[in-house]
Amino acid sequence: MIRNGVKQRWAEGKPVLNGWLSIANSFSAEIMAAQGYDSITIDLQHGIVGYDGAVPMLQAMRASGVTPLVRVPWLDPADIMKALDAGAYGVICPMINTRAEAERLVSYVRYPPAGVRSFGPSRALFSAGPGYAAEADDEIICLAMIETAQAYENLEDILATPGLDGVYIGPADLTLGLQGKRYAPGFDRREPEMIEAIKTILHAAHRAGKRAALHNGTPDYAAEAVGWGFDLVTVSNDVRLLAGAAEASVRTFREL
Amino acid sequence: MIRNGVKQRWAEGKPVLNGWLSIANSFSAEIMAAQGYDSITIDLQHGIVGYDGAVPMLQAMRASGVTPLVRVPWLDPADIMKALDAGAYGVICPMINTRAEAERLVSYVRYPPAGVRSFGPSRALFSAGPGYAAEADDEIICLAMIETAQAYENLEDILATPGLDGVYIGPADLTLGLQGKRYAPGFDRREPEMIEAIKTILHAAHRAGKRAALHNGTPDYAAEAVGWGFDLVTVSNDVRLLAGAAEASVRTFREL
Amino acid sequence: MIRNGVKQRWAEGKPVLNGWLSIANSFSAEIMAAQGYDSITIDLQHGIVGYDGAVPMLQAMRASGVTPLVRVPWLDPADIMKALDAGAYGVICPMINTRAEAERLVSYVRYPPAGVRSFGPSRALFSAGPGYAAEADDEIICLAMIETAQAYENLEDILATPGLDGVYIGPADLTLGLQGKRYAPGFDRREPEMIEAIKTILHAAHRAGKRAALHNGTPDYAAEAVGWGFDLVTVSNDVRLLAGAAEASVRTFREL
Amino acid sequence: MIRNGVKQRWAEGKPVLNGWLSIANSFSAEIMAAQGYDSITIDLQHGIVGYDGAVPMLQAMRASGVTPLVRVPWLDPADIMKALDAGAYGVICPMINTRAEAERLVSYVRYPPAGVRSFGPSRALFSAGPGYAAEADDEIICLAMIETAQAYENLEDILATPGLDGVYIGPADLTLGLQGKRYAPGFDRREPEMIEAIKTILHAAHRAGKRAALHNGTPDYAAEAVGWGFDLVTVSNDVRLLAGAAEASVRTFREL
Amino acid sequence: MIRNGVKQRWAEGKPVLNGWLSIANSFSAEIMAAQGYDSITIDLQHGIVGYDGAVPMLQAMRASGVTPLVRVPWLDPADIMKALDAGAYGVICPMINTRAEAERLVSYVRYPPAGVRSFGPSRALFSAGPGYAAEADDEIICLAMIETAQAYENLEDILATPGLDGVYIGPADLTLGLQGKRYAPGFDRREPEMIEAIKTILHAAHRAGKRAALHNGTPDYAAEAVGWGFDLVTVSNDVRLLAGAAEASVRTFREL
Amino acid sequence: MIRNGVKQRWAEGKPVLNGWLSIANSFSAEIMAAQGYDSITIDLQHGIVGYDGAVPMLQAMRASGVTPLVRVPWLDPADIMKALDAGAYGVICPMINTRAEAERLVSYVRYPPAGVRSFGPSRALFSAGPGYAAEADDEIICLAMIETAQAYENLEDILATPGLDGVYIGPADLTLGLQGKRYAPGFDRREPEMIEAIKTILHAAHRAGKRAALHNGTPDYAAEAVGWGFDLVTVSNDVRLLAGAAEASVRTFREL
Ligand SMILES: [Mg+2]
Ligand SMILES: [Mg+2]
Ligand SMILES: [Mg+2]
Ligand SMILES: [Mg+2]
Ligand SMILES: [Mg+2]
Ligand SMILES: [Mg+2]
Repeated sequence: MIRNGVKQRWAEGKPVLNGWLSIANSFSAEIMAAQGYDSITIDLQHGIVGYDGAVPMLQAMRASGVTPLVRVPWLDPADIMKALDAGAYGVICPMINTRAEAERLVSYVRYPPAGVRSFGPSRALFSAGPGYAAEADDEIICLAMIETAQAYENLEDILATPGLDGVYIGPADLTLGLQGKRYAPGFDRREPEMIEAIKTILHAAHRAGKRAALHNGTPDYAAEAVGWGFDLVTVSNDVRLLAGAAEASVRTFREL
Repeated sequence: MIRNGVKQRWAEGKPVLNGWLSIANSFSAEIMAAQGYDSITIDLQHGIVGYDGAVPMLQAMRASGVTPLVRVPWLDPADIMKALDAGAYGVICPMINTRAEAERLVSYVRYPPAGVRSFGPSRALFSAGPGYAAEADDEIICLAMIETAQAYENLEDILATPGLDGVYIGPADLTLGLQGKRYAPGFDRREPEMIEAIKTILHAAHRAGKRAALHNGTPDYAAEAVGWGFDLVTVSNDVRLLAGAAEASVRTFREL
Repeated sequence: MIRNGVKQRWAEGKPVLNGWLSIANSFSAEIMAAQGYDSITIDLQHGIVGYDGAVPMLQAMRASGVTPLVRVPWLDPADIMKALDAGAYGVICPMINTRAEAERLVSYVRYPPAGVRSFGPSRALFSAGPGYAAEADDEIICLAMIETAQAYENLEDILATPGLDGVYIGPADLTLGLQGKRYAPGFDRREPEMIEAIKTILHAAHRAGKRAALHNGTPDYAAEAVGWGFDLVTVSNDVRLLAGAAEASVRTFREL
Repeated sequence: MIRNGVKQRWAEGKPVLNGWLSIANSFSAEIMAAQGYDSITIDLQHGIVGYDGAVPMLQAMRASGVTPLVRVPWLDPADIMKALDAGAYGVICPMINTRAEAERLVSYVRYPPAGVRSFGPSRALFSAGPGYAAEADDEIICLAMIETAQAYENLEDILATPGLDGVYIGPADLTLGLQGKRYAPGFDRREPEMIEAIKTILHAAHRAGKRAALHNGTPDYAAEAVGWGFDLVTVSNDVRLLAGAAEASVRTFREL
Repeated sequence: MIRNGVKQRWAEGKPVLNGWLSIANSFSAEIMAAQGYDSITIDLQHGIVGYDGAVPMLQAMRASGVTPLVRVPWLDPADIMKALDAGAYGVICPMINTRAEAERLVSYVRYPPAGVRSFGPSRALFSAGPGYAAEADDEIICLAMIETAQAYENLEDILATPGLDGVYIGPADLTLGLQGKRYAPGFDRREPEMIEAIKTILHAAHRAGKRAALHNGTPDYAAEAVGWGFDLVTVSNDVRLLAGAAEASVRTFREL
Repeated sequence: MIRNGVKQRWAEGKPVLNGWLSIANSFSAEIMAAQGYDSITIDLQHGIVGYDGAVPMLQAMRASGVTPLVRVPWLDPADIMKALDAGAYGVICPMINTRAEAERLVSYVRYPPAGVRSFGPSRALFSAGPGYAAEADDEIICLAMIETAQAYENLEDILATPGLDGVYIGPADLTLGLQGKRYAPGFDRREPEMIEAIKTILHAAHRAGKRAALHNGTPDYAAEAVGWGFDLVTVSNDVRLLAGAAEASVRTFREL
């Protein structure tokens, strides 16, 4: 089985730069896969992408060697197992709030006896190379999103879940969850209490022997997060990159 | 944020005429959006439409100004939140049978602290105009379908759910639920006990300060329902309109 | 090979009632195929349908037994042959203006030595039953649209084309072609000179031993056309049927 | 309502040969439907197929008369009811581990009062012929997959579920569930303890008056299973048939 | 009929800023349509987009009010007329090399007697507002691409074509055409002989009373081109904007 | 630019084994690409595949390293150039009957001054690696199908076309063309006059310094053809492989 590039970089002590796809098109996925990310995540939660749209995106990224991940829409065994069968090397699961939910997440990505994943990796048998049945449990990663007040309270419990690879912080939801509508939701928080919350999660993860990941809006903030110790950082997504570049191009032209 | 036309009409004391889409095509959606409905619902439950088919339909209706709603397949946070992120201004949720289910429904369509909706309105940020994060909780509506014996028993409880905008009656299921297979399922019930059940729900909703909506087969029955006091009436759907018109055209020709 | 229902009805001296599809969806096609038409044409010219959209429509209509036809976008061998390979039992070709064009049309739908159609009926081998290679030339029909001033002038020449099954009148284009913008384009012409032109084509076709077909907006006009002698009449299409029925439903409701 | 071919063969005392689709294409479905299977199942669990991809496959198989079944991704009412509304004549549900789960499965496929299926068979009204509302509960079948250690323990309980038509054995998962990773997952088990487990399920099913089905890799093993008494056997799937035939063709060429 | 924004800006003496789409997705089209372009062109020639992919893109851009144009794959009546029927307000046609080709282009976009466009604006009747039949010939624009040595030689002839709105320069092909492989193909030419060629076309167009348009890679070059007198300038496309922004984001992160 | 594997094998004196795709699905394409073919051709002529369906197939095959070819529907510059821009490494063009047609074919696949291909390899820039503009003319191959009586007569003329890489024999059409309906169309001809015709083309090609390719139904015939000297042999296609394997599986089961 082809190794999981995310785990390999982690084993080498290197942070992972993750790209993010919200546009349901295989050509934009292929373009993004050529830009130098270590891993790219198809966002089936907030992305405007469903399962039928995601499969050709996974296929179009295969040749690049970038590690394909999927953010699933919710803690649902069908969605998680279908993403893995289609070739994803890991799932990021939103809104994990309790130890029980974290355990369910782990169980959905591991074959028995470690979990309850059903066997039938129809595309993965082609895309992941030989040895899938024996090695998938070791290669596939699962990251629980910590992004609510409840999750923050249950942080230690969640982090103690065997088989969980790490946690992934969604700063927009975490801000909403911890502060309500006091601050506008978004990435790259600068409020001291949010930075403290983010670092609290980071350090608790590392104490528990887990990886910590952060969703970011800009490369600068992401680099800062890596400096804090984050193991994986997502920077922006296809929608923001496209909209931002087009808006800048139009503005530049209009001002000339 | 662009105002919710359904709420606006209600604020003006006017009933809402709702169209219904079960064909997964963006051109038929664009055609329907030009016919004068106040709102149009894409039916992800019984319609032959999945998420990947629904997105272009929402886009094709945007220019018309008609208010886009979605009937979700079931009380499932992923389906509900994906519909809203894709730009729906409201969800109609089938088979709400208890107060607990109604509370879950409300929680899925409101951001914290009112609910647990996850933040990431990827398309809505484009389609709904500025201010989405701050105003979505006020603009988005959620309607619980009352269509089983259990729901009918729990009616008062369900209607007392804070944040629920109203109830939506599915006459086919309600007839099955209350009468079993005694009557053929369908809309536009004429059995006295069914009319009584429908009016019971209507009046209970209004007493609870909620809106009441009814699914109808014909404009005549819908107009009658508005006379009873219904706030939103759906009349037929794309499948029945097309089949009915084609059948009538063929029959007319054959008889000439 | 399953017989061509259009030819069968013609052999029995009966007129053919043809439906028309401009919405690229297999469910709307399946619905239309259940309404009693003798044949149904997928409109790849003015319909909002391309080849990739048309194939599932052909498949969805197969079970109904309705005879599937395709109006191709133009006199182009690729489009014509692909439609036939996908299972169409006939092509209606727009804008045939000369004998040479009519001959090209015929050549594209017949295998050598009668024509130049390339062999490879990939789907037709499944959908049309055994015997395709031997019988297709006899079963497949081709109709040349007469809808320009030039075609009207060359009418006798076009009608003398061996292998051409008949002509199909597009009244909107024919009106534009013969009268310019003097009249609004549309079906169901009532101007005496247009009725005369239509009847001229009809009678010339019959004199030449060819079939004559007319595109109509209403069953009444179509029935009248059958009275004049037309062999195939199209009545309306999915777009107009859906829009008309929805508009009438909304109007009825608003007026109640 | 068109009769369920699977139930008809069972009533005649004949075993059912079931095909299996994991490629999301309506033409490959149409091809498979021409090969002589009694029923064909679209695999929405491990197949690389989502709902939007499955609908045209159901349509493309309709003309063949083969009985269309769906394996749903999980025990989820939305997925199950959408498959039935789209015209499936039965569902195979993975990972049924308890009596309670089996009861939920049954409830999702039966209308009240037998179950909780919501009424709205949008496509089935066209594809299944008249009488759907009255007859669907009798024609639609549901099979619970027995494929975990927990299910094996609860076998008698599950089999006692009223309304359940039978059980379907997934040998790959069952081997994983009963033996862990001791054996490679796969079909056509030859280990004595696995054959015993398979026969135990078969005989328990028959004792309980239920049908028993088995997923197989080869026609030989399937024929053997029929000899043991199995009522329905699946043989291979489109992916394995295509890959196997292509691999054999390439190998033959290379060796010549 | 809704006015053509390109013609309106030209009538006001303002240059048009045109966006360019090569990714076949309706959400990326909707995003691009929100960035402030005056017009946006779907590239059916070199874009990875076919007709079936382009229709939802046109629909998704409708609400923005941006003027939708299409670059067709070639001088082919089917492609040109289908683009217009689907709602495009203009076509840019590649590789127009002679007066005869320019005349054919004009004829395909105008109804008789001005041209040979066939009548049936199925979607345009919905998207363009009332009056299409009477006004389309005045609103729809056609631009001939001048991008070969032959076209350059025939420039005056081509520009004298009645009904042609203007010429559109493709600098990559023009460089190849005039210089062979001496220079790498691309936009934003700086070679004196290429600037001269570009200005020669510009001035010839204006002398002939036609508009001149230029494809550009950067807003700076486009602004310079407007300074030279160009009436419409395209700046970059979705592929380059996305790839460029992602590449810059990755590089910035890697360098921090 | 990544080298063309077909040319590389030819340079090494080895024959090329070519696969063939007629099912419009990216997963079946990915499966086929894993079976050991040297090149795989997507059949846009007789395959049930259009442009929008072919792009994800090209993407899904990219990781395999198999050389992707396209059979275009006809000698049409738009179809040919779009296939190349989407990443095809060669085109097989049906029904080339004259030297003039062969010259047009060559011109469509070569950039000026060798041909008239328009520059804009949108996907190929990503999939083919750096250097495309400079090297594509050397890497891309074009094969003219010889499959009519007229082509057979003009064989020497066609083969003398500069820039043409070779000829590809379609035995079904060639049999129809040379023998009319005397023999059933199909591959693997055994009639002496057809074998002679095939060998005549083969030897003429080699005398002219061109490659010769043959479409075959079985590996045995293909191996025999390689023995005769053919440089590229296609064996069967996805449709026949799938149908054949399924039919054999069903038959085997039924007979056991
Ligand atoms: Mg979140
Ligand atoms: Mg209901
Ligand atoms: Mg016409
Ligand atoms: Mg299983
Ligand atoms: Mg160009
Ligand atoms: Mg051929």
